[in-house]
Amino acid sequence: MRRIGRQTIKFDNDPTIISHASIAGKKEGEGPLGGYFDRVLPDDRWECRSWEECESKLQTQTLELAIKNAGKTNNDIDTLIGGDLINQCTSTSYGIKDASIPFLGIFGACSTMIESLIIGSVLVDGGYSETSACITSSHFCSAERQFRNPLEYGGQRDQASQWTVTGSGCVLLHRSGSELHITHATIGKIEDMGITDMNNMGAAMAPAACSTIAAHLNDTGLRPEDYDAIITGDLGYIGSDILKEIILDEGYDISKQHNDCGKLIFNKEEQDVHSGGSGCGCCGCVLCGYILKELKRGTFNRVMVAATGALMSPVIVEQGQSIASISHAVTIERR
Amino acid sequence: MRRIGRQTIKFDNDPTIISHASIAGKKEGEGPLGGYFDRVLPDDRWECRSWEECESKLQTQTLELAIKNAGKTNNDIDTLIGGDLINQCTSTSYGIKDASIPFLGIFGACSTMIESLIIGSVLVDGGYSETSACITSSHFCSAERQFRNPLEYGGQRDQASQWTVTGSGCVLLHRSGSELHITHATIGKIEDMGITDMNNMGAAMAPAACSTIAAHLNDTGLRPEDYDAIITGDLGYIGSDILKEIILDEGYDISKQHNDCGKLIFNKEEQDVHSGGSGCGCCGCVLCGYILKELKRGTFNRVMVAATGALMSPVIVEQGQSIASISHAVTIERR
Repeated sequence: MRRIGRQTIKFDNDPTIISHASIAGKKEGEGPLGGYFDRVLPDDRWECRSWEECESKLQTQTLELAIKNAGKTNNDIDTLIGGDLINQCTSTSYGIKDASIPFLGIFGACSTMIESLIIGSVLVDGGYSETSACITSSHFCSAERQFRNPLEYGGQRDQASQWTVTGSGCVLLHRSGSELHITHATIGKIEDMGITDMNNMGAAMAPAACSTIAAHLNDTGLRPEDYDAIITGDLGYIGSDILKEIILDEGYDISKQHNDCGKLIFNKEEQDVHSGGSGCGCCGCVLCGYILKELKRGTFNRVMVAATGALMSPVIVEQGQSIASISHAVTIERR
Repeated sequence: MRRIGRQTIKFDNDPTIISHASIAGKKEGEGPLGGYFDRVLPDDRWECRSWEECESKLQTQTLELAIKNAGKTNNDIDTLIGGDLINQCTSTSYGIKDASIPFLGIFGACSTMIESLIIGSVLVDGGYSETSACITSSHFCSAERQFRNPLEYGGQRDQASQWTVTGSGCVLLHRSGSELHITHATIGKIEDMGITDMNNMGAAMAPAACSTIAAHLNDTGLRPEDYDAIITGDLGYIGSDILKEIILDEGYDISKQHNDCGKLIFNKEEQDVHSGGSGCGCCGCVLCGYILKELKRGTFNRVMVAATGALMSPVIVEQGQSIASISHAVTIERR
């Protein structure tokens, strides 16, 4: 059995990350991680007729880049796993449809990057796929108009709100071929603490991150200090503070190891993003830009990445439901 | 390697279906398969405040029933894999959130039942899950108002249109314990033949079914006559006729084995459903009602189920894109 504890998979063959690519938006390119992205968009449209088309193009090109970086062709990829935030996950389907790769669509909201890595790792570890590709994206404009208001309104943004990242990340996994290994995966359970404020996603998602990180540590017997970093997906400033506090009740102090993709990607003082970045592309391009490059460089040797997703829709919230969230985690080791 | 050919997985341990459950809507209960469903709803609301809440309740209760039928508890289920048609897959997330089971959300539109069986089977076959649960649902009213018109308009329905099934299906998989085995899984590639008519999904999805069934037969070396039945998800009458014709060009005549969940579930003459049933719940409750029960009974010994999904959203189609589709298939054997 490759399952340890209730939620965690321990891989037998520790699939390796043979390639990764990230493309980010203009604003993200102007942030502190700008130099880490493989490509930065000139504007919100990228010569497309719509923001949705631009988000699809992000995935098309990020996938192409990851495959090219590995010296492979589309035919070498056995399974592509991906998803996004847009209704019916069309950014993914329409972005990758011409690639002609066997495809499993997933929906994990902003936890998608890590959910795709979990499924992709299982397929490679168990010999169900020679090479898996894992992909996600988000786009500020397509997300904003779908989840909140038409951008043309110019509505004021709540101080607790987060800025949806324009960006895409793609990882290629193979049985061997790189020093970066996926060693563990923790599948999240849905948590719902009754938060109904759609402008405070960090607070809604913090309990899910807490639950998954604690489950990971319980299941593996590892301690926070066994990690060089424990990086959440997009809790932002408010959610990160909540996480560090509530996980103390589980017996873990992660304050030394913890950081958050939503805090890392923007400059809080200069970029007016309130509580930080969010969106599937946040964890996607911070993982594929910053985290994996710093792992390769030796800054980190073992990192847990726990992406978080708020699973609600505007309809569900308008109908009076609270915001259910989930977090999935993987451990990546350099050796 | 457990992969044969480009798209097909051959399982080493042939995971077994230890339990299944189906709940269907009132209209579905009045159709030819009415007697096969474990429960039939009294109306469209089922004492819920909204159709969306009713669809979530369908999943809550179908999951409970499948777990109970297996003599298990929620804690025995290692991984739940599920999704639906509603924006952000909320019918699933909100339906199963209180079950406290590690959860992987997926989006395959109406191919979701089979996509969840593929991932669930991989997890069990490879020892990543002791027991997986696979679930999906759809609801006529929640789908109609999201994808087409408010029901209150009473708009006329196109003759090529299909009727979204109200229903849910859930399957429990375990390494052993039943005579029903999943032996193969074929992961679909996205097909897009340029169809833009949202009222003719069967035509849009038939090429995807053709591609996946042909890939399955090519990869496995099996012939149509090796199957007692080859059942597609929800091509309906129009899509089924197209499939049988275009797959001849691939060298396969499936006319003797082929049937379609969308044709099986309603009485075409009496129930006014035009081209037949559709929706994630169509394949979901026909599989978990009719197909698995007839396999157990010995009517069939080997069945291929190829669910089909149209991956578009109303926004994408309004922006002028055509309808991309996918089909995933599994083979189920009784032995």
